[in-house]
Amino acid sequence: MAKKIITISREFGSGGRFIGEEVAKKLGISYYDKNIISRIAEKSGLSPEYIQESAELSPKKGLLAYALAGRDITGKSVEDMVYEAQRKVILELADREPCVIIGRNADYILKDRDDVLNVFIHGDMSEKTERIMRLYHIEEKEAVKMMADTDKRRMTNYSFYTDQKWGKASNYTLCLNSSQLGYDRCEKIIVECSK
Amino acid sequence: MAKKIITISREFGSGGRFIGEEVAKKLGISYYDKNIISRIAEKSGLSPEYIQESAELSPKKGLLAYALAGRDITGKSVEDMVYEAQRKVILELADREPCVIIGRNADYILKDRDDVLNVFIHGDMSEKTERIMRLYHIEEKEAVKMMADTDKRRMTNYSFYTDQKWGKASNYTLCLNSSQLGYDRCEKIIVECSK
Repeated sequence: MAKKIITISREFGSGGRFIGEEVAKKLGISYYDKNIISRIAEKSGLSPEYIQESAELSPKKGLLAYALAGRDITGKSVEDMVYEAQRKVILELADREPCVIIGRNADYILKDRDDVLNVFIHGDMSEKTERIMRLYHIEEKEAVKMMADTDKRRMTNYSFYTDQKWGKASNYTLCLNSSQLGYDRCEKIIVECSK
Repeated sequence: MAKKIITISREFGSGGRFIGEEVAKKLGISYYDKNIISRIAEKSGLSPEYIQESAELSPKKGLLAYALAGRDITGKSVEDMVYEAQRKVILELADREPCVIIGRNADYILKDRDDVLNVFIHGDMSEKTERIMRLYHIEEKEAVKMMADTDKRRMTNYSFYTDQKWGKASNYTLCLNSSQLGYDRCEKIIVECSK
């Protein structure tokens, strides 16, 4: 069965976002990444700035923060409200049109559909570090820390909301090492597998 | 860089062995699976029957069994002797000729080479169960148990000897869900990625 929706989870620095954008261009379909923040903001009633900070990339949120976060009168934490809005936005987008969705646990949120290709992109430490140093103009030590922190937050967020392990092969249709295979080949494989 | 050696790790029932054999045929290279047992036997001085039972597929060995197993005067358990012989055989095969190697922690054993394509094949529970029922002429309940037991042994053996997690995407170049992608497409992707 052809896959209408492509979700891309990725290690920080692996080029997963870039690869996803290229795949969307090649297939002529929509690409959703940071551009869904305004939709989530609208749906949750929270500010886009807060959503940006709060969701997947929150710099200070760990599992403990989820437990200690402020809760409204329904018992929901603000993070839960953001997540619920994010979930609804992703379900609506998938209903509306073929698209590529980056991160945000979209693989899990769309698990009841059978037209979704779930991809995980990872890479070799040395190449990911170099890429982050180049993109963010930072030193190696800082890049390594940024990578570890970001992936830890993604992992924590994913485990918390899905009860699955981030980066475990069996959660995805396809997992690719972009350093060893090259970005071009990753794009080709994903396009081919969506048919 | 072209990949001379292809290692295939796989969930039981996912068709990984079949896919590996087809890939070897398509590339015109050697295929090593059960046919390396006699080499391991020769190298270790143990019987082929024992190797067959002892290695990856041992029905009664868990982590505890490794700890409690009989040891020779050098302090090595019989399992360690089998593993050491297996390691040597795999290193020699990889040195000698391009080939496909199924299981036996070959991905880890060959980790210092840069011409190895490491593949993990997994699949959907329902399809794997059906395949096992068909291949072994058994009922669903027995197939589910056989699958759980075999994968648990593979996982235990892998963790014990590699200190890595079996089935974690980042250990492999390529992970494929054979139920969702189909065997043909898996074979094509592996052949393509070996070039």
